[in-house]
Amino acid sequence: MSAYAGKPCILCCAITGSVPRKSDNPAVPISLSEQIESSHAAFEAGASIIHAHVRNDDETPSSDPDRFAALQEGLRTHCPDVIIQFSTGGRSGAGAERGSMLPLRPDMASLAVGSNNFPTRVYENPPELIAWLANEMQTYEVTPEIEAFDLSHILAAIRMHKAGALYGRLYVQFVLGVKNAMPADKAVFDFYVQTMQSRAPDAPWCAAGVGAAQVMVNEWAIAAGGHTRA
Amino acid sequence: MSAYAGKPCILCCAITGSVPRKSDNPAVPISLSEQIESSHAAFEAGASIIHAHVRNDDETPSSDPDRFAALQEGLRTHCPDVIIQFSTGGRSGAGAERGSMLPLRPDMASLAVGSNNFPTRVYENPPELIAWLANEMQTYEVTPEIEAFDLSHILAAIRMHKAGALYGRLYVQFVLGVKNAMPADKAVFDFYVQTMQSRAPDAPWCAAGVGAAQVMVNEWAIAAGGHTRA
Ligand SMILES: [Zn+2]
Ligand SMILES: [Zn+2]
Ligand SMILES: [Zn+2]
Ligand SMILES: [Zn+2]
Repeated sequence: MSAYAGKPCILCCAITGSVPRKSDNPAVPISLSEQIESSHAAFEAGASIIHAHVRNDDETPSSDPDRFAALQEGLRTHCPDVIIQFSTGGRSGAGAERGSMLPLRPDMASLAVGSNNFPTRVYENPPELIAWLANEMQTYEVTPEIEAFDLSHILAAIRMHKAGALYGRLYVQFVLGVKNAMPADKAVFDFYVQTMQSRAPDAPWCAAGVGAAQVMVNEWAIAAGGHTRA
Repeated sequence: MSAYAGKPCILCCAITGSVPRKSDNPAVPISLSEQIESSHAAFEAGASIIHAHVRNDDETPSSDPDRFAALQEGLRTHCPDVIIQFSTGGRSGAGAERGSMLPLRPDMASLAVGSNNFPTRVYENPPELIAWLANEMQTYEVTPEIEAFDLSHILAAIRMHKAGALYGRLYVQFVLGVKNAMPADKAVFDFYVQTMQSRAPDAPWCAAGVGAAQVMVNEWAIAAGGHTRA
């Protein structure tokens, strides 16, 4: 019997992200209506979580709460019961801006709990900002999805959960394949899974492989009883 | 037979560090003569590497190459053949300042290869600065000691070494027990050792436990065939 026998697998679809533009791939949904229809298609195909970033009219990342509100309203109509997860990632804004959509009370929001390098810069998540975002999520009853770019981020998430600093159920996403952060490495993935199983056995987890690593990491996650991000 | 049977263990002594002041501990060597005599005592007691930071007259951390030069001269006289390792850490300067003592050609220098959180802030090591410091170390024939504050830093070090970006022999230090970075955790330590053994079996490694974790982490390192920092 495999690790996933009988256990449903959550499919999370990140429809837009913060980086790709139409010039990279014309299919990237940028406008509100494109995002809603792309989410609708993903929902019909079986996605249960929509991970969303919003964009300005010039395609640059935005953290404008009005844009998030409009997307939320569209998703509620077109994708009934889908779990809406907004990004509080650092590419779309700086400091407290990153949490400006949390008062909309999305079901979930991404939460970084440490810092690391990205391909060309430092992904800065100062301890104070992390504590503030986690606290805002408690205020607005938003369940965080922890974005773990390194091993210490997984341990930090478990520690914060045990200390009561995270709203709702602990849910950790392993992010693999980002240049200068963690590569998509099977031995590391296995240790991540073991770390979750030994220290937070009741907590579900998922794995995201970036770019070329996506399908491979999804396969690792499904085989190990985890959930997936596409 | 234990892992360390017959294998000499390198003791590295960090005489000053960048944080503690006389008000924290009157024994912290701050002035040039205090640093030289403290190093001399460590050398007589068996230390083979002196890891050094320098301080301004007001005890704040400095990256002034003249202060490093004076220390280097004193160490050469008082501790013949000791391995001199200068810190390029981020508490003593910003940007290229951090490498301003490398033209002195110390035997070794510390090198961060990733970013992470510290107790109250982000320890920022942008990819461009890392590449510049590594390149300066090649220019001046300085062997880096990689400071691994998280798992991805170990993998980055091995990758950089294989790519020829690091001068000399690969030498990795696991730093454990820094709040908001990696805790002093035995399962993590064991995975670190396994990672080195499987991917860079010829590379020596050492482990530093910060504060209360120091002696425990030294014991783990010695028992696993590694080297130590005190
Ligand atoms: Zn995202
Ligand atoms: Zn629709
Ligand atoms: Zn140091
Ligand atoms: Zn002396």
